[in-house]
Amino acid sequence: MGELQTRRGRIVPESQMKTAEAQIIEKLAKAAVKSAGTAKLLRVGIGDDAALVRISAAGETVLTCDWFLEGTHFWRAKHPADSVGWKCLARAISDIAAMGSAPTCFLLSLALPASATGKWLDQFLMGLKRASRHLRCPLAGGDTTRQDKILINVTVVGAGPRGRAILRSGACPHDTIFVSGRLGEAELGLRDLRSKAGRPSLARQISRKHLYPEPRLALGQWLAQKRIASAMMDLSDGLSSDLPRLCAASGVGAVIDVAKLPLPTITCTRNLKQTDLTSLALHGGDDYELLFTVAPRDLRKVPKLWRGLPLTPIGEIVSGSKILLRDAHGSAFELEPGGWDPFLK
Amino acid sequence: MGELQTRRGRIVPESQMKTAEAQIIEKLAKAAVKSAGTAKLLRVGIGDDAALVRISAAGETVLTCDWFLEGTHFWRAKHPADSVGWKCLARAISDIAAMGSAPTCFLLSLALPASATGKWLDQFLMGLKRASRHLRCPLAGGDTTRQDKILINVTVVGAGPRGRAILRSGACPHDTIFVSGRLGEAELGLRDLRSKAGRPSLARQISRKHLYPEPRLALGQWLAQKRIASAMMDLSDGLSSDLPRLCAASGVGAVIDVAKLPLPTITCTRNLKQTDLTSLALHGGDDYELLFTVAPRDLRKVPKLWRGLPLTPIGEIVSGSKILLRDAHGSAFELEPGGWDPFLK
Repeated sequence: MGELQTRRGRIVPESQMKTAEAQIIEKLAKAAVKSAGTAKLLRVGIGDDAALVRISAAGETVLTCDWFLEGTHFWRAKHPADSVGWKCLARAISDIAAMGSAPTCFLLSLALPASATGKWLDQFLMGLKRASRHLRCPLAGGDTTRQDKILINVTVVGAGPRGRAILRSGACPHDTIFVSGRLGEAELGLRDLRSKAGRPSLARQISRKHLYPEPRLALGQWLAQKRIASAMMDLSDGLSSDLPRLCAASGVGAVIDVAKLPLPTITCTRNLKQTDLTSLALHGGDDYELLFTVAPRDLRKVPKLWRGLPLTPIGEIVSGSKILLRDAHGSAFELEPGGWDPFLK
Repeated sequence: MGELQTRRGRIVPESQMKTAEAQIIEKLAKAAVKSAGTAKLLRVGIGDDAALVRISAAGETVLTCDWFLEGTHFWRAKHPADSVGWKCLARAISDIAAMGSAPTCFLLSLALPASATGKWLDQFLMGLKRASRHLRCPLAGGDTTRQDKILINVTVVGAGPRGRAILRSGACPHDTIFVSGRLGEAELGLRDLRSKAGRPSLARQISRKHLYPEPRLALGQWLAQKRIASAMMDLSDGLSSDLPRLCAASGVGAVIDVAKLPLPTITCTRNLKQTDLTSLALHGGDDYELLFTVAPRDLRKVPKLWRGLPLTPIGEIVSGSKILLRDAHGSAFELEPGGWDPFLK
């Protein structure tokens, strides 16, 4: 025993018994938003080996996970910690919106350097908590460890009525291609952020779109409930990278009318040419708008504005596998993915 | 249009349309084990925005996620890629075993340097696939990105009969504390691995326990079905770190009899003293054995050997909050957590 005690099993005051990891887990547990609804859903949240969730029997469970890494997806010097907290959850929930489903709860895996366990973590958790409340998605559990960079992984569990989820694979020739909102504004926000010293003023609309994206949950669920969309996905990497994925899953091609793209209306101080704006709309990432296709018979059900959000027809699904861009003169060119691919950075 | 084409939207041969990320996702999709059971369970696996799973209506859903990071949890020069694949899933599933539940499916988040997308990834996926089959837990989806180190995060979704999950919080004074298997063998394997140049011989039993851990799924489910265990968790960080967590969750203390600890029986070439072995059993991590408590009335239900696996009573739950070590002479000392805490490394 004596030997053991001098090695690792020595007597310590009880106050030191709480390990550093336990303190971080306690902070996370406090950030878990508890309401009447979540108490019923989450039988066991943070603090056990795993979370226990009671999921509605009638539905289908939707699962997604998403990396959010310092130096790749955000920069500590540029992105306020609370925007990192908001965005890591919002972008993962965007995948749930893209299925036409609703979020149920999420798991947070967090790896932190010791320097980020204080003020940074507190502000991060404030943003995360705000998103969790706003998007009605409580924190159910997670894992923490130490690392020299901040690493975040978010898993979201969602639910929807059985057989109603909208997949990428349902698009057919003659379907019209729609996008929600405007494309390229988040990329414009990122450029603005990069071009300035220090952190952005949070009041600026242009950076807000990049820092605090709003997943299109209500629209996605409406499109699923009304059976309007034949295929759907969210735009995270940019239209030119994401549209080919939807087309490949459906075994179809597409023609996009350049003139119809909903270009950014928010402009920053620099003058941008029309072609710059078009390029932003085609290749800019992080918009988290919905890309969906609608069969000819359902076209009349799609309003131009849905609860204030523009829904814009930008082209048509065609047979084959090519993704073409058609200009105002009717000439078509094949579109190369120009959006985000981490392995080609 | 011309300007757009010269910037990013230029015409490319179709063969180049498949991005690097898409190729990795294709490898993952091939690694997803498909069987009759999983086809029924997984309505949509890899390739859409999220996975769609049909979970049994009667049960409770169990959720857990787990980091497995190069340089923290494994070393590329020491750990064979297939053991990384096996272990990242096995250790996450151990949390499901610790609830007395069964795994349903898992999500894999993988961040890789370009240098690991070839042979390393292939061997990693072989180990992962082997574990996925062996533990009957199919890959449902995931996320990939690039990073200069290999980062892995695994989320496991499990299921169990409603109200039967065994929590950490159910231990009461007078309950007997049990562990499955032997403690400290994985730590011994890790030491062996570190002490030698190059990678280990896979045939060596001592390194196998560290490289290819076996989560105690069947035992956990048996203890839950028979309602034998009052509280349970898996031993991932070491008894001296994990037991205080179970006690804190239950609001109790514990007395461990040092002489009763099931010490490693596998010994490597170096001579180890009894106190070294005791220290390994108390503080060694990565065993993934089950730690569980049994009320006096249920003690007769616990065999000494369960399907060949020793179940050893090592002490007793007591009131209060102290964790004491009792030696052969009956003297007791407070135990300090000496296991794995990433923030105190």
